[in-house]
Amino acid sequence: MSQFDNNWSFINEGDLTPEGFSFAGISAGLKNSNKKDLALILAPEGSICSGKFTQSIVRASCVDICAERIKRSAGLVRAILINSGQANACTGDLGTQHFLIATEKISELLGIKKEEVLMCSTGVIGVPIEIDKLVKNLPKLVRELKVNSFQNAAEAILTTDLTLKKVFIERIIEGRKIRIAGLAKGSGMIYPNMATMLAFLTCDAGVEKKEWDKMISIAMKQSFNAISVDGETSTNDSFIGINAGKKIKKEFLSIIQSGINIVCQNLAKNIARDGEGANCLLEVLVQGATHNDDAIVIAKSICNSALVKTAIHGCDPNWGRIISAAGNSGIKFKLDKVDLFIGDYQILGKGKLKEYNPQKVSDYIQSKMNGKYLREDTVRIELNLNSGKAKGLAWGCDLSKQYVAINSEYTT
Amino acid sequence: MSQFDNNWSFINEGDLTPEGFSFAGISAGLKNSNKKDLALILAPEGSICSGKFTQSIVRASCVDICAERIKRSAGLVRAILINSGQANACTGDLGTQHFLIATEKISELLGIKKEEVLMCSTGVIGVPIEIDKLVKNLPKLVRELKVNSFQNAAEAILTTDLTLKKVFIERIIEGRKIRIAGLAKGSGMIYPNMATMLAFLTCDAGVEKKEWDKMISIAMKQSFNAISVDGETSTNDSFIGINAGKKIKKEFLSIIQSGINIVCQNLAKNIARDGEGANCLLEVLVQGATHNDDAIVIAKSICNSALVKTAIHGCDPNWGRIISAAGNSGIKFKLDKVDLFIGDYQILGKGKLKEYNPQKVSDYIQSKMNGKYLREDTVRIELNLNSGKAKGLAWGCDLSKQYVAINSEYTT
Repeated sequence: MSQFDNNWSFINEGDLTPEGFSFAGISAGLKNSNKKDLALILAPEGSICSGKFTQSIVRASCVDICAERIKRSAGLVRAILINSGQANACTGDLGTQHFLIATEKISELLGIKKEEVLMCSTGVIGVPIEIDKLVKNLPKLVRELKVNSFQNAAEAILTTDLTLKKVFIERIIEGRKIRIAGLAKGSGMIYPNMATMLAFLTCDAGVEKKEWDKMISIAMKQSFNAISVDGETSTNDSFIGINAGKKIKKEFLSIIQSGINIVCQNLAKNIARDGEGANCLLEVLVQGATHNDDAIVIAKSICNSALVKTAIHGCDPNWGRIISAAGNSGIKFKLDKVDLFIGDYQILGKGKLKEYNPQKVSDYIQSKMNGKYLREDTVRIELNLNSGKAKGLAWGCDLSKQYVAINSEYTT
Repeated sequence: MSQFDNNWSFINEGDLTPEGFSFAGISAGLKNSNKKDLALILAPEGSICSGKFTQSIVRASCVDICAERIKRSAGLVRAILINSGQANACTGDLGTQHFLIATEKISELLGIKKEEVLMCSTGVIGVPIEIDKLVKNLPKLVRELKVNSFQNAAEAILTTDLTLKKVFIERIIEGRKIRIAGLAKGSGMIYPNMATMLAFLTCDAGVEKKEWDKMISIAMKQSFNAISVDGETSTNDSFIGINAGKKIKKEFLSIIQSGINIVCQNLAKNIARDGEGANCLLEVLVQGATHNDDAIVIAKSICNSALVKTAIHGCDPNWGRIISAAGNSGIKFKLDKVDLFIGDYQILGKGKLKEYNPQKVSDYIQSKMNGKYLREDTVRIELNLNSGKAKGLAWGCDLSKQYVAINSEYTT
């Protein structure tokens, strides 16, 4: 994806975030380290919120209350408090109690209704938050709220992440500067349950609730739902998008949608890239499908396959595993129509093996390894089903011995 | 499972197989090694066959023809030829041609109709069978057919398997000795595409086609469909059950069903135990569900979880990952009703953490490791949802660095 897709520009540090929003991130001593662990996002009055939450049956009570508050208020949410260190899940009644105490305090400090405050948690399951310590630090957190404290907030929501995940884009629509900023945490599941993907998106183009819900759903499907580190979901996974400001004309909604997609896809790719023990990002494009949803399902099936992931790790252009993973997706296609590319190398043409140099393809994969902080370290697989015009993207990472080490050498 | 469940007895080497059936296994030089690679099963006249095949879209043409022949003949199949070494998949028109040549030759040699012959293949994808070599060896294969060559046939269908997989049980019903014998191959997916699970069951209690189809489906669901090595399925997965002999009375069908289940579950466990780089068998029992199918889905979700598998590998009694995997199964349950046991140790009672000694649970898991050829090396996890009377079992294995090594260090 180029820097200027759809005329959206990527913005770096030091710039102002979407108009009217402010951010804060501090250390409240909730983690064993001195790292930041408490973040706050404040949205301007009249903002519209939409949320997507983990579909796991075992989910934290804070997730249930967030979903309920967004529903009851029809999306009129003003503030999101985020703590990292404890997931506030599987702690019985304490989960709800701590949510209520913390959000009520924030509402007092900000002078807004308590129902307008959400709280998201990430960290270890089964260990209660040190709520007194957290509450004691809330006045400081509120004092730190600034329009340009985006970076601090992004830092404070991390747990085992190796990299910061924030994306900030802008473009002019009808002479007005529109900004979309997103921050996220997530890197597969290290340690017993420091799972969780959290993502927050802010946008200063006003969009009506019903439309916004749709747009957030579309972005979700094409980004966070299309990544796979190890196929696991967690108790606390949440994606919350808030817009505020003067309503944008209907004819420009598709531009906003593409902006939201760009932000979410970039955050999602950064999460996949940050997978445990990962050495490269795997990007799978499926084209020529009958429906976009089918294309994504096939792309995800390839990204999810332990055999594809280990082959990539071994720099092995193992087309049989790729085709086999596509075949296991549950989506019908005709093998004798399939074109397969790894990077720029065509492996199959209409289902038949092409003449290609396996060593060169292996070298291509090798060249994408171990540069995990670079934008370019992406192994691309492209499958064309030649049966329609629909397409879908998914992202994953290689499966390394390091993944097994990280996940097996921890002892409860 | 005891040796004498339902009064079925496990039989060892040297005994006669189900009445009327004969077996053969030879080396035809189709593999790089001198190992056996060609097997034949001959069923008596009037036998009834039922088959279950891979649901992958990318499946070998031999699988399609087998399914078609069973359907057309209403199950009147007499012989199954099995080759190991090449999967006869993704080889274009050659796949069908080689199937037709080999099965026609067998029909001539045995004096049966060519439509009564099936052929199953396992091995490398994309490489054609050396069909001349195979055909040249068919007369020898037919000459070797014996009632007690079961072991030879079981050896000849293996590829990367570390252990032979055969189960043979018998019991008396109304003064008549009934025998059920099964053989299988499969061990997850080592090497590019030496995938495939093949299983064959023979039974000398006659059962009508319609009833037999049902029984084979039930056994399939409770055995081969309940194992997980790495969640992958292949181009050639097949399970074929044949019965012959005097029809058994309806009132005894449930006994035959339990016998079929025992044979298939034992074969399935042996496949899971033989998983790549596996050090122990993981057995998950889910009880107290509303439906048996729900229970199996949850049990499989736990067996499939990379995080559970790595935790078991690390001897970590990580209950959070087990509960989280159950929560991700898509089946609804109430966490506050759940009891969880690892071995005999209760971890959760009605969703609440019990006092248990993590070191003892870790020692329990450790004690089941690395004894992979023993019947007792099974780590047992039991989840009781306390919401109904249904239950289900699933089997898997731990996920080791060795799995990654085996699957990534191969280079095409």
